Formats: sequence, structure tokens, C-alpha cells
Amino acid sequence: MRDVTVVGVGMTRFGKFLDKGLKALGAEAIREALADAGIDQRQIEAAFVGNAMAGLITGQECIRGQVILRSLGLGGLPVYNMENACASASTALHTAWMAVAGGMYDVVLALGVEKLYDQEKRKSFTALGSAVDVEAAEEFRRQMSAELPAGGAEGAGETRSVFMDYYASEARQHMAKYGTRREDYALVAVKNHTNGSLNPKAQFQRARSLEEVLASPMIADPLTRLMCSPIGDGAAAAILCSAAFAPRFADARPVTVRASVLASGTPRMGRASSVVARAAQRAYEMGGVGPEEIDVAEVHDASAPAEIFLYEDLGFCKPGDGGRLIRDRLTSLAGRLPVNTSGGLLAKGHPVGATGIAQVVEVVGQLRARAGARQVGGAKVALTQNAGGVLDDEPAACAVHIFAV
Amino acid sequence: MRDVTVVGVGMTRFGKFLDKGLKALGAEAIREALADAGIDQRQIEAAFVGNAMAGLITGQECIRGQVILRSLGLGGLPVYNMENACASASTALHTAWMAVAGGMYDVVLALGVEKLYDQEKRKSFTALGSAVDVEAAEEFRRQMSAELPAGGAEGAGETRSVFMDYYASEARQHMAKYGTRREDYALVAVKNHTNGSLNPKAQFQRARSLEEVLASPMIADPLTRLMCSPIGDGAAAAILCSAAFAPRFADARPVTVRASVLASGTPRMGRASSVVARAAQRAYEMGGVGPEEIDVAEVHDASAPAEIFLYEDLGFCKPGDGGRLIRDRLTSLAGRLPVNTSGGLLAKGHPVGATGIAQVVEVVGQLRARAGARQVGGAKVALTQNAGGVLDDEPAACAVHIFAV
Repeated sequence: MRDVTVVGVGMTRFGKFLDKGLKALGAEAIREALADAGIDQRQIEAAFVGNAMAGLITGQECIRGQVILRSLGLGGLPVYNMENACASASTALHTAWMAVAGGMYDVVLALGVEKLYDQEKRKSFTALGSAVDVEAAEEFRRQMSAELPAGGAEGAGETRSVFMDYYASEARQHMAKYGTRREDYALVAVKNHTNGSLNPKAQFQRARSLEEVLASPMIADPLTRLMCSPIGDGAAAAILCSAAFAPRFADARPVTVRASVLASGTPRMGRASSVVARAAQRAYEMGGVGPEEIDVAEVHDASAPAEIFLYEDLGFCKPGDGGRLIRDRLTSLAGRLPVNTSGGLLAKGHPVGATGIAQVVEVVGQLRARAGARQVGGAKVALTQNAGGVLDDEPAACAVHIFAV
Repeated sequence: MRDVTVVGVGMTRFGKFLDKGLKALGAEAIREALADAGIDQRQIEAAFVGNAMAGLITGQECIRGQVILRSLGLGGLPVYNMENACASASTALHTAWMAVAGGMYDVVLALGVEKLYDQEKRKSFTALGSAVDVEAAEEFRRQMSAELPAGGAEGAGETRSVFMDYYASEARQHMAKYGTRREDYALVAVKNHTNGSLNPKAQFQRARSLEEVLASPMIADPLTRLMCSPIGDGAAAAILCSAAFAPRFADARPVTVRASVLASGTPRMGRASSVVARAAQRAYEMGGVGPEEIDVAEVHDASAPAEIFLYEDLGFCKPGDGGRLIRDRLTSLAGRLPVNTSGGLLAKGHPVGATGIAQVVEVVGQLRARAGARQVGGAKVALTQNAGGVLDDEPAACAVHIFAV
């Protein structure tokens, strides 16, 4: 298969935009990516469009990509509408990569877009709740509620995602098994909100203290509100092309895709066999790099504890050692391996079907040394990890990408 | 890119199955395809899953493929959830083809599945109505209603698809421009219901006379009920593998994919520039065959008039000559170019996200000379055409495949 490069990226600010629909959000990200690549949109040969929940929120259940692209004069392109819950954008990116690497197209667009806010807030949470086996969902909710410690059920109900119950359960297990502390989880939120304060595209741009994080309202013990990613609206886009084609975009400072892996979860036998660990292992093999060579990473911190589990699953440290990485500030901007320099899902925000490509926007900025106040000096190799849905206590989908300059 | 073959196909009967969900339907089609290929399911490396409307009908908006595959013990496979309205299955098939042709995988599963019937019938039509630009849909409906001749509005309202208004409008234009007759459209329905009567997987297995078709209730002038595809439930699956890998499945009688093209509609300047004509032209170039070499075809007869338009768009005859093909019985089972030998969408049924692969099930059967009472003697080259959604009076998505033995 051929080498593939990213030659342009763009994204909207993430946030609550009740006046903007899928078309307006998508168009803004695409225009920025086209301008960044210095490419005429007529050179684009196909579009891979990730979205998770427009059917339940806006009613646009079908042909989501065509509706968006037509408004930009890109209506004639073959459109691959992709879905993988919160990993929809990385699935679109991966499929776009596969199409170029395999020789089908030379220049393609990958877009992730999501409109989660609605006047009727309950719609958003119903949609988020569809990223499980809905036939079995009632049972899932019952199990999770039964596990919640007394008092932890505050804030429960239909106006929050069932995923926070899942993450809370995992967080309590990690505390019991490895001695991880509630403060470790809070430090992840502190770090990511600090990073978000430096990112003009972030939904939240205000640094938060450890005290503020711990004192914010309890969502599902031990998760306080500031340890949970918000819902949001937004879009992110990337232009991919074959490496042979990239020199035509001389100004674009192409970034090479070293690995692109998509995997699904199965019931696991411990951390090392998690879907994230399996996907990461294959990505390291495909990319010919190890975790010790990663200079900067964006990972799926849908909740603060998740980032700590991901340090372990991605091989950034040994199982159980995740809490130490955050305590020792190794993943802070000035640390050895900065993680979620964008602010992550916690602060940059999490319009679910846009997140996977927004991660790529951040690491491409880092690898091009254009990340401004968030720049990680000398970053040459970057990793992104994006997960979606839950089945069998595992993410249903997980994509890991490695990029290099 | 590498040659790709289809080594196994399977499908459920299409129909109304209120007691079967996506999992049961999908599992039945997959098991049949695996058995047909004589393959151990552990050899499958990835799954491409087409579905259009489960979010609005069953609530399973996300990770539709994972939920189905897990129930079969295929939970760990990378899953590409694909959507393109009524062309969702052919989009999944095309993407599966691209993945194998490009060298990413050797053996993959493509599945199309749809559950349209619900206790609450209105849900189905709301879902079908989401295959247009929903923001502009109100305007679309107004335009279509204004065009309906007096009396043609009988049966209109919220319990039928807006697409029948679209097709009726196109049918009236064809009559005015080319002298096509209401009876020509009815003959398509007669042919396809005759074919369906020979297909044990068809939703409707009863031959219909010209008089019956013309006398059935008017849906949107000139379309009577028997000229409109029904809604339905069903699933269809195909196993694809690289040609180099195919000899391992010695019993499978592999069928080669000669062309696989996906396109999107743009406002057209007449029939010759339609998205179908563009996709077909590219498929003929890719496959190195012309329309005169096609021995059997399955096309998207969502309404009876559509089949006549498709004869023209696919190059089976000159623009305006479609009515003659059906009058002269050239597309009947005993004709020169049998079309919709399965019964087509009109009689076999149209569970939208399953249709594109069900077409492949039929032509693979024909090319293997296993089509029973529907067998077309000596068929060596087959074409399938599947369309989805409507934007700018064109299908939003269209896939054309050519297969050969």
C-alpha cells in the first residue's frame, strides 16, 4: 500500500451553537482545511464523512455527507457516510487513508461533524445512549445503577450519559486494584483545562485548580462534572493525499500517516488485552515505532479516569502506573510525553462524530510546529486514539493513528 | 489494485417480520453466506455493514454493525458502519471491495440489513423521509404536492414515502416527452411480479396481470400501489476475497468483481448526465465491457417507471426508448437482457439498507447457474445498480457494480 500524507486540516471552535446546523459547521471546517492545504476543491476526488447522531438529533438520518457537501459545491463527489459512535471521525479518517493507500483515489477529504445541542436537551442524551446495544440497554442501565455507591446517584437520570456510569465503575475498580486516587483523576482535568485555556478552538478556555475540580458537582462517584467531557457541536476536516501527490501542495508541510488501525472490542481478560491495547500494538507494528518514541498524543479522555487507563493501554507506562504519570507531570505540556495538548475531550469539547479528526488537527499542528502557546518542542512523532460506544464493558470501536514528520 | 472475487452470498427472505430485529436478520444472512463460501468465520478480517434507518426505527443509532456481529461471535472484527440511504448496502459492498482491492484485507464480509416495519407504521415513513435534505424537506414536499394532478393526491399524506411523489413527477415528464404509456410502467410491474413468483426469498410471490396492476389503488398518478416497492425487513451478505486467496475456497465458484463505482448526484442537464449514467459509464470503463455485453442486471426499481429510466441511463437503449424495451419483452426472463430476475424491489421487496447486496445475491446466483426457475441461460456478465436518497431531483448516491465469471 502507498504512503499517505495529511496536507491540510481545519476545524470549527467546539461549543454550543444552537444557530448552526450540520451544513454550517461542516462547511467551516472544510473551508479551513482546503485553505490550509492550498488546494482547489475541484482536486478532491471523494469524501469520507463521520457523524454519529444526526438522525436522532436533527432528523437527518440518511445522506448526511451529501447534504453538507452540496452546500459547498462538492455535491458530485462519491460520499462514504461512516459511523462508529464517538469514533466516527477517526473511522472516516481511517477509511479515507485506506482508499488513498490502496490506490483508489489520490486526494480525499475526511470530515467529522456533530450537532449535539438541541433546544430539547433530552434528545442529546437519548442519542448518546444509542451507542450501546439498545435492546440490552435497559439491563445495562440497571447493572450500572446497582453498582453506584449510595450518594453517587445524584445527578443520575435521563439528562446525563450512561457512559459516565461506565467510566465511574472503571475508575472505582482502578482505585481498588492499584491505589489510584481521586486526586489523580482530578489532576487529569486540571492539566487538560490548563491546555484548553491555551486553545482558541476549545469549548472551555478557563484553567481550573485541583480544588475546583474536586468541588464541582458529583456526577457519578468519583467523577465530578469537571472530570466529564461536555456535549457540544463542531466539525473537523483533513485533506489526505498520496505521498507521491503531496509535493504539489508545496506550502502544506505534509505530515505522513505512519499507521492507521481500526478495531472493535470483545470481552477482555484484563487491561493488556483491551481493544485499545490491541489497536495500539498493531499501530506500533505498522508504524515501526514504539510507545517510547511518541512525542505528543491526543487520547479519548471522555472522562478524566479514561486518560489514566489509556496511558496504560497505549503502553505509555505499565498497568497500574497511570496515576504516577499524571502525579509526576510527565504528560503535562512541559513533560516527557505531553498528552491532550488541545485540552482533550474534557476542555476542547466532544462533539462526538468530530472528535477523532479534531485530535488530528491538534497533532498536525504540533508536528508542523504551529501549535502556538501549546507547542511541544521538537515533536516528530504523534499518536491519536479515539474510541466509540460500549459493548461488553469495552469500547465498541477504537482507532489508533500514528503521524510523523 | 488487486482483483477481488465474491466467494459467498446469503440473504433472508424479505418481508414483514415484526418478531425479528437487526441481529436476527443479520445473523441469518451472514450464516448463509459463510456456509455458501465454505469458510470458517475466523478467516473474516473485517466487516462492512450497510444500514440506513435503524436509528429512527429501532433506536440503534450507533455501532449497528458491532451489535449484530457480536451476537455471532464476530465481535472483534474492525467494523465499518456505512450509510447511503437506499444505497447503503452497495456502498458497504463497494467499500469492502476497495479494502480488498487496495491490499488492506484478504477476506471481508459485506452486510446490508434493514428493519423497516414497526408496530408504529408512521416511524417507517418518517425514516424514509430522512433521505432528503431534511432542512429543505418541507419545501420539497410542497413542490411535489403542487405538481400532483387533481385526484393524484389520493393516498397522499404521512403514510407513504415522499419518493413516490418524486417518481410520479419523473414518470409524467417521461410520458409527455417520449410518449411512454401508463401501460409500459405497468408492464414493468407485471414482469417483476412474475419473476418474484419464482423467487422463494421474495416478499411477494404472486404473479400479477396488467389489469391487476392498473386497477390497484392509485398512490401518485400514474403510480398504482403495485408499481411501488413495498417497505420491508431483511438482510443480505456477501463474502469478498482477493483473487489470489479465492482458490482456498474451491467449492465457492468465485465470481469476479469487474467494476465497483460509487457516485453522488448533482443537478443534471438531462438524462445523459444523470448520476446513474455517470456511474455506469465509469463502471463500463473500469470493467472493460459495454452495456451490450451485460447478460443480466438487477436495477433499482423503487417504482416501476424507474426501471424504464434506468434502461436508458445504463445504456441498455437510447434515451426515450425505455418503454419499447419492456413492450418488446427484451428485459423479461426469456428476453435478450433480463432485468430484475429476482423480482426487483417491486416484488422481492426493498428493506432499503439490504437491497444493494440482495441484488448481488441474485446475480451471483445467475452467474453460477444456480438461479433455479429464474436462470438466465449462459449468463457470464452481470450488472447491479442501486441508488439512495434524493437531492436536486437526482439520487444522492448511486453505486454500479459489474460481475463476471
